[in-house]
Amino acid sequence: MSQPLDFQSIILTLQQYWNAQGCLIWQPYYTQVGAGTYNPATYLRVIGPEPWNVAYVEPSVRPDDGRYGENPNRLQQHTQFQVILKPDPGNPQELYLKSLEALGIDPRQHDIRFVEDNWESPALGAWGLGWEVWLDGQEITQFTYFQQAGGMPVDPVAVEITYGLERIAMALQNVRNFRDIRWNGQRTYGDVHLQGEREHSQYYFEVADVERLRQMFALFEAECEQALAQGLVLPAHDYVLKCSHTFNILDTRGAIGVTERQAFFSRMRDLARRVAEAYAAQRQSMGYPWLVDEPAAQTQPSAPAAAAPQAHPAGPADFLLEIGSEELPAADLHGALEQLRARVPALLDDLRLTHGEVKVWGTPRRLVVMAAQVAERQPDREVVHKGPPASRAFDAQGQPTPAAAGFARGKGLDVSALEVREMDGGTYAVARVFEPGRPALEVLAEALPKLVADIRFDKVMRWNASNVAFSRPLRWLLALLGGSVVPFTYAGLQSGRVTRGLRFHTPAEMEIANPQAYLPVLAAQGILLDPAERRAAIAAQVGQLMREAGGVEQVDEDLLDEVTALVEAPTALRGSFEESHLSLPQEVLVSVMKKHQRYFPVRKADGSLLPYFIAVRNGDGQHVDVVADGNAQVIRARFADAHFFIEEDLKGRLEDLRPRLKTLTFQFKLGSMFDKSERIGRIVERLAGQLHLQPADAAAAQRAAALCKADLVSHMVVEMTSLQGVMGRFYARHDQEPEAVAQAIYEHYLPRFTGDASPRGLPGLVVGLADRLDSLAGLFAAGLAPSGTKDPFAQRRAALGLAQMLMDWDLDFDLEEGLRLAAEFLPIPLSPQGQGECLEFIVARLRGMLLEQGYRFDVVDAVLAEQKRNPAGCLRGVKELTAWVQRPDWASILPTYSRCVRITRDQKERFSIDPQAFCEEAETELWQALQAAEAAPRRAGSVEDVLQAFVPLMPVINRFFEAVLVMAEEPQVRANRLGLLQRVAALPAGAADLSPLEGF
Amino acid sequence: MSQPLDFQSIILTLQQYWNAQGCLIWQPYYTQVGAGTYNPATYLRVIGPEPWNVAYVEPSVRPDDGRYGENPNRLQQHTQFQVILKPDPGNPQELYLKSLEALGIDPRQHDIRFVEDNWESPALGAWGLGWEVWLDGQEITQFTYFQQAGGMPVDPVAVEITYGLERIAMALQNVRNFRDIRWNGQRTYGDVHLQGEREHSQYYFEVADVERLRQMFALFEAECEQALAQGLVLPAHDYVLKCSHTFNILDTRGAIGVTERQAFFSRMRDLARRVAEAYAAQRQSMGYPWLVDEPAAQTQPSAPAAAAPQAHPAGPADFLLEIGSEELPAADLHGALEQLRARVPALLDDLRLTHGEVKVWGTPRRLVVMAAQVAERQPDREVVHKGPPASRAFDAQGQPTPAAAGFARGKGLDVSALEVREMDGGTYAVARVFEPGRPALEVLAEALPKLVADIRFDKVMRWNASNVAFSRPLRWLLALLGGSVVPFTYAGLQSGRVTRGLRFHTPAEMEIANPQAYLPVLAAQGILLDPAERRAAIAAQVGQLMREAGGVEQVDEDLLDEVTALVEAPTALRGSFEESHLSLPQEVLVSVMKKHQRYFPVRKADGSLLPYFIAVRNGDGQHVDVVADGNAQVIRARFADAHFFIEEDLKGRLEDLRPRLKTLTFQFKLGSMFDKSERIGRIVERLAGQLHLQPADAAAAQRAAALCKADLVSHMVVEMTSLQGVMGRFYARHDQEPEAVAQAIYEHYLPRFTGDASPRGLPGLVVGLADRLDSLAGLFAAGLAPSGTKDPFAQRRAALGLAQMLMDWDLDFDLEEGLRLAAEFLPIPLSPQGQGECLEFIVARLRGMLLEQGYRFDVVDAVLAEQKRNPAGCLRGVKELTAWVQRPDWASILPTYSRCVRITRDQKERFSIDPQAFCEEAETELWQALQAAEAAPRRAGSVEDVLQAFVPLMPVINRFFEAVLVMAEEPQVRANRLGLLQRVAALPAGAADLSPLEGF
Repeated sequence: MSQPLDFQSIILTLQQYWNAQGCLIWQPYYTQVGAGTYNPATYLRVIGPEPWNVAYVEPSVRPDDGRYGENPNRLQQHTQFQVILKPDPGNPQELYLKSLEALGIDPRQHDIRFVEDNWESPALGAWGLGWEVWLDGQEITQFTYFQQAGGMPVDPVAVEITYGLERIAMALQNVRNFRDIRWNGQRTYGDVHLQGEREHSQYYFEVADVERLRQMFALFEAECEQALAQGLVLPAHDYVLKCSHTFNILDTRGAIGVTERQAFFSRMRDLARRVAEAYAAQRQSMGYPWLVDEPAAQTQPSAPAAAAPQAHPAGPADFLLEIGSEELPAADLHGALEQLRARVPALLDDLRLTHGEVKVWGTPRRLVVMAAQVAERQPDREVVHKGPPASRAFDAQGQPTPAAAGFARGKGLDVSALEVREMDGGTYAVARVFEPGRPALEVLAEALPKLVADIRFDKVMRWNASNVAFSRPLRWLLALLGGSVVPFTYAGLQSGRVTRGLRFHTPAEMEIANPQAYLPVLAAQGILLDPAERRAAIAAQVGQLMREAGGVEQVDEDLLDEVTALVEAPTALRGSFEESHLSLPQEVLVSVMKKHQRYFPVRKADGSLLPYFIAVRNGDGQHVDVVADGNAQVIRARFADAHFFIEEDLKGRLEDLRPRLKTLTFQFKLGSMFDKSERIGRIVERLAGQLHLQPADAAAAQRAAALCKADLVSHMVVEMTSLQGVMGRFYARHDQEPEAVAQAIYEHYLPRFTGDASPRGLPGLVVGLADRLDSLAGLFAAGLAPSGTKDPFAQRRAALGLAQMLMDWDLDFDLEEGLRLAAEFLPIPLSPQGQGECLEFIVARLRGMLLEQGYRFDVVDAVLAEQKRNPAGCLRGVKELTAWVQRPDWASILPTYSRCVRITRDQKERFSIDPQAFCEEAETELWQALQAAEAAPRRAGSVEDVLQAFVPLMPVINRFFEAVLVMAEEPQVRANRLGLLQRVAALPAGAADLSPLEGF
Repeated sequence: MSQPLDFQSIILTLQQYWNAQGCLIWQPYYTQVGAGTYNPATYLRVIGPEPWNVAYVEPSVRPDDGRYGENPNRLQQHTQFQVILKPDPGNPQELYLKSLEALGIDPRQHDIRFVEDNWESPALGAWGLGWEVWLDGQEITQFTYFQQAGGMPVDPVAVEITYGLERIAMALQNVRNFRDIRWNGQRTYGDVHLQGEREHSQYYFEVADVERLRQMFALFEAECEQALAQGLVLPAHDYVLKCSHTFNILDTRGAIGVTERQAFFSRMRDLARRVAEAYAAQRQSMGYPWLVDEPAAQTQPSAPAAAAPQAHPAGPADFLLEIGSEELPAADLHGALEQLRARVPALLDDLRLTHGEVKVWGTPRRLVVMAAQVAERQPDREVVHKGPPASRAFDAQGQPTPAAAGFARGKGLDVSALEVREMDGGTYAVARVFEPGRPALEVLAEALPKLVADIRFDKVMRWNASNVAFSRPLRWLLALLGGSVVPFTYAGLQSGRVTRGLRFHTPAEMEIANPQAYLPVLAAQGILLDPAERRAAIAAQVGQLMREAGGVEQVDEDLLDEVTALVEAPTALRGSFEESHLSLPQEVLVSVMKKHQRYFPVRKADGSLLPYFIAVRNGDGQHVDVVADGNAQVIRARFADAHFFIEEDLKGRLEDLRPRLKTLTFQFKLGSMFDKSERIGRIVERLAGQLHLQPADAAAAQRAAALCKADLVSHMVVEMTSLQGVMGRFYARHDQEPEAVAQAIYEHYLPRFTGDASPRGLPGLVVGLADRLDSLAGLFAAGLAPSGTKDPFAQRRAALGLAQMLMDWDLDFDLEEGLRLAAEFLPIPLSPQGQGECLEFIVARLRGMLLEQGYRFDVVDAVLAEQKRNPAGCLRGVKELTAWVQRPDWASILPTYSRCVRITRDQKERFSIDPQAFCEEAETELWQALQAAEAAPRRAGSVEDVLQAFVPLMPVINRFFEAVLVMAEEPQVRANRLGLLQRVAALPAGAADLSPLEGF
């Protein structure tokens, strides 16, 4: 094997390769950018209808990726090679893969995968769908179909290929650290860049002056505005980039709070959008000069060739449809298969094609429908068409009128063939028409485009001039009925009999004679078409490797589902990492393995981790050592990264981070996260009293309140936000804080999502309550109530969590009072009206949760009407009421009660009762029973207690109604009787309002 | 011929070429830079002892070069390709020229020249010596031996090669406008960059906000300081670059005044220096890691091979020395030839080598010495060495002492061989030693290194490890005595018999058998070795082309000298430009042709220009059309540039520019150029009265004062400062200002240099006086008197001009009064002491001028002593006194006068005369003659009149001294006599003080 390319030769090779593909070779941009996308050669040129093919190097600067040169492959400056192909040439994945071969990467010796990764730049108002390309688990390229830029659709769509050259070089040269990459014959990457990594990391993380950078941002923004005002697109764009880089430094310095971030993004997005719009307008006003002179582009997908005429099968035949695509995301694959399973049999039935079993299978690159023994044609049939009413079709003499003649002509019949029938409640002239069955080939050819088009996805994309939307680009269509091609075109493709094999295997394309021949051909390349079979195979392989590694066989189901959807021909392999990494918090290790890498962690029986992981490659078991080694390198780098962060963080105590919260804005009007944590502390202090916490719990809660947000400015959490709380607990333990404090820091975030646990300890509960009350009250005070689908501050989440934790703890708590308490400490006032709206917002979430749990909405509304301020009471009430409404005697209980309510409902007056004025015994009896019921011991808000107290009243009430005329003439008598019933109606107050209930 | 390379292929080809030469391939920098030099891959890496070979593209941004895309080859962003070779590989020019061939440039078909161009970046504290490389008159590359960076010597020296890719592409593709450069198969340069040129030009010239940019500068500077304080070299360097770019924009906006510029540069230079020093210290502390692992460098000049033993000539033989170098600057060539002409004969004499005629010739690439018939060896001789005094050499017995024995031994003699001789005024023991003559080869070999080393240049450079300093690198040494090589080494070179031919001609190297063979070999390639012959040939060719073009034969002598020194084998060629350009001011056209391009302008008999130019190429007449065409393109672009500026300027009136002078700082304490022009106006108003100007002149002067500085903010003058005044006059005429005003605007700058004319009109004179008085008084008031060699405000020039114009106009003017007048209007006070110092400063310049003009310093001092405040009077006085001191009777005139002075000099008292007390007739006679002399009509300050009046007194004075004893006993008598002589001594007062005169 020849010497692998050095770093500069990789660049030269890619330049030559894409030059040969007709790309314009461009240069890195002259201002710091986070990615080649920001270069106007991408960001602007992808806009508008003109073609554009370009390739360039882009040293990309991402301050917060700086690791002082200590991480093996994470750098504050890495080298991208950027390619834009616009429009889609039809085979961009293949062009890309050939470029890897040009670099000397033999794809047969590696696991090369397209792993779903959608790209979005809020700052640029841009997004696209595509993949990370993985080389043995390492992301080496971002591959994106650019859908939108500057808020405008990208049409035609541009393919963006972004190589990460350091990682490619490391893989090619088989080195483990960026420093060792050979740059050229004399120098290594470390020689020329290590010092820069150290210095820039230090500058970005420690030295850059926050106030000055804020000023720079403002100046850049103002210059951008000024340039825009003059219609100067490129100067304006330059300043957007300078804003962006400056923002990134501020962010790295930890100076940007969550809400401030939103504001910054919104400013940058606005500028970027206006730049893009100005560019679009400019090109339009120039008349799109590049549209005219483009040579008949071989980059355009060629128009599908007309299909050769196909012979109709002579009898029932198997039907095969393979929809070939670029790699589908796991969820999209699942969804598409589900839809096809439901629709295909229905479709065949609609088409009146008899058929045997229908099977629907799929892999990331193909959706497959196999229907056995589909009839070669529809059966013939007679169709009756209703014509004009007989009275108008025939005259008095029974002769057909012109109306009848016209109807018959329209159906291709002689007027004499019309018949008269009773139908649809009248008498009509009808035409009986014979319809011969059509060949299956024809009806399928007509129906299949719609079948494909009707597959729905959460997110769809366009890719070529057909403007078809799909999850990912469709690249081939195979449709056979027996030995014949079902001819149709869709998305610029012509159906045929060619399938494609497993990537990098030969032959790459295969002609399929008939459906029976299809499965063996794919199986020969190891492709497991059936997801269930694939899933089982993976589970078995993974389980076996877990046992071999000394772990228990415990295969995460969700991950298994996902991995099943990521490969066509799975091979599991085991990799390992240094035991020393096991000292990292488990959450970190697992999160990295599962979330980032889709690796299965390996656990011992006691649940602790072993220093292994199981990865599943696409392809066979060849070169599995190379693949495993690559994957291990990835995990090593990621763990090293976590180590780096945690070690940085452990240089101080958690409480030392608190002051830095001052630089983290929570929200402009509500101050910093430091201010917030101070407010939490004061709320906690009051809640501890209200909730009668034990001194130990109160102290723990107080301490946890002080520390609960500190980890937000820790390096590890800045890097992986999902570890908030987890790291706080870890650092608190390290600092030897009491365990209750550490736990409360973690737990105050609970529950984080529907179905998540609530805090197990009181301190965590109280801090969590305080945090959410402060957020909700504060953001409403700031006029930031969520509207529509917008909820940038996750207030829905906060409200849900609040309700959930109170219900889980069955803790009675008055939300109204809680909001009032929180409002006391806010820097801005929350009006009573605002408090009311905030409460209603929470109640709406509470109602939703209860409904989600399956409770009847009338039951829920009945309880909420009386107990909405207290979620725990609501849940109890709802449960109790639910049991009552299911009782057989409910049908008599509710009407008895409702009769009392209805007769008194319109009375404005509240009548007092004068037993002296009772006329009937039934009155006295009710009066005594009522007093007994009212006096019965009732738990606050208990629906059970109310109804238990009510039941004995029922016969008394019935007798009362039988005995007396409530609306007596005599006012005092009527008042007494109404008063008694009002008191009955009032019985459930504080527990439920039964009037919303069904049957009331 | 194959298709010329497109733009991107040029880049790819250069990358491949230099990659193959072992260069590291680098990327453009991520912040806007004016040149690839600023990339740390150059600016920092050239520092220190480590080797470094790198090549990269650098899109370079120079705001003030923006032309809105309208100039054919001037761009606000152009593309450099930068190469650094450190250390010097020994043949960098050849490597470079081969890269041009790789690009498809056949050097035989073009005129490729290395034209002196030294590079200095005040902002970077860096400089180097080298050339522009011209391709058919177009600068396509900057080639520099980097001598200093960040204020530190670059050791080893780095070779910096900076290609201008647009110009190379235009030449290669034979297109006339950057827009038409083919970038790749589909796109032109204009397609991808024209809009950017327009927008950025507009941004830089019109839109960028001065105040915000100033703030940015300050912020960048502060961040740089902070990074430096932390030892962060690269972040600090980034901010230096950001400062630099921001400064460039400010400058383009016309917001930087002359003195403010100095301050900005000084701030940037300081930062850059500290960055460089920090980098140097860092590499040192790292132990220079790249020093160790460098493979035995083929990039080092190989150690000279030992010379083969040479046969001594058998008799007198011709001697030839050729010092081969890279292209010498014209002035250095002249200087070196002059020195060799003086030194070589002396050297041969010193070496006691008889010889015939010595000829010294030279071209830019070789200095040649040819001495006829040099003796093959020195004659033998006897040398007498003086030993100890005889008294110590021999004892009383005449026996030699140990001292004598030691002396004899030291001379290789027996003590008995000592002799005693009278010499040097004493008696000594002497040794007579026979010295056989040494072979010429030997003594020449010893002497030649020093001959070369002793050649002095104004500026010298180092280039390789020999650390020899020379004008440009020495590359070969040819030294023959007859057929034998004179063997010596110098600057890492071994002398030999190989010469090199005319560049690009074959053979490239030629062995020379003996000196006679040398001339024909060079002549065969068209090289004219003799500068005089070359000069004559050029003059003849140029003259002929001028006549052919319909012009008069008028060959500028200075330019002829320069061009003679730029070529080895001259061929003149004629090019033309559009007649429309003739509408540009002549000064502009001529300045561009002569100064920038070394072209000879062609004039008609009436002095007006014809639309032609004569260029002189190096080489023969082949492909002269291609060369002429290239040269014509250059001039076209330059004229287009001038047109662009002037048209921009003509969009408004000259007076409209005045307000913009407010943004142009003259000096911090003295305000803007606007303030200055206001002051000039007020001084002019007063001077007009004092000098009794006619109303028309006064009005013209007043108007000219208002407008005189306005052109400083015009585009054309911002671009070519030397056109100040010229453009003002042009614009004033265009605005239909009175001709006297236009002329005065131009003339107020006169005289601009020694020998330049003074203003011809009074308005120009008065405005010029006012301008200079204001500058001098103001800068002294600001404490900015020039010190040492520093004179950043050109106050010497101002003072010289002031004196010159007054003398030329023979205008009596009291400088002291003028300064007092100027001081009145200053915003800061000028103390009387300051006025005195300022006057003395001017007088010192005046004295220098007069001495320079050849007047005797005693004469000058004599007149200055009495008339220094009035330069015109001084000149008259000096002239008159010069005539007098040359008179034959001066020898009696001066003593007669001086006797009167000397005898009275020590008298403190001023004696009055009482004729009643005269004792002798001689007294009375003197008294009467004295009164007559005093009463004679005298022009103010006239030395002539004084001396004419004195001459008749001489016999009287002589008689007086014969007749009387001046120092008589009687006080009254003595007082009378002293008083008379005091009156005589006082006669020249106001004209001259004769006491400094020689012979006084």
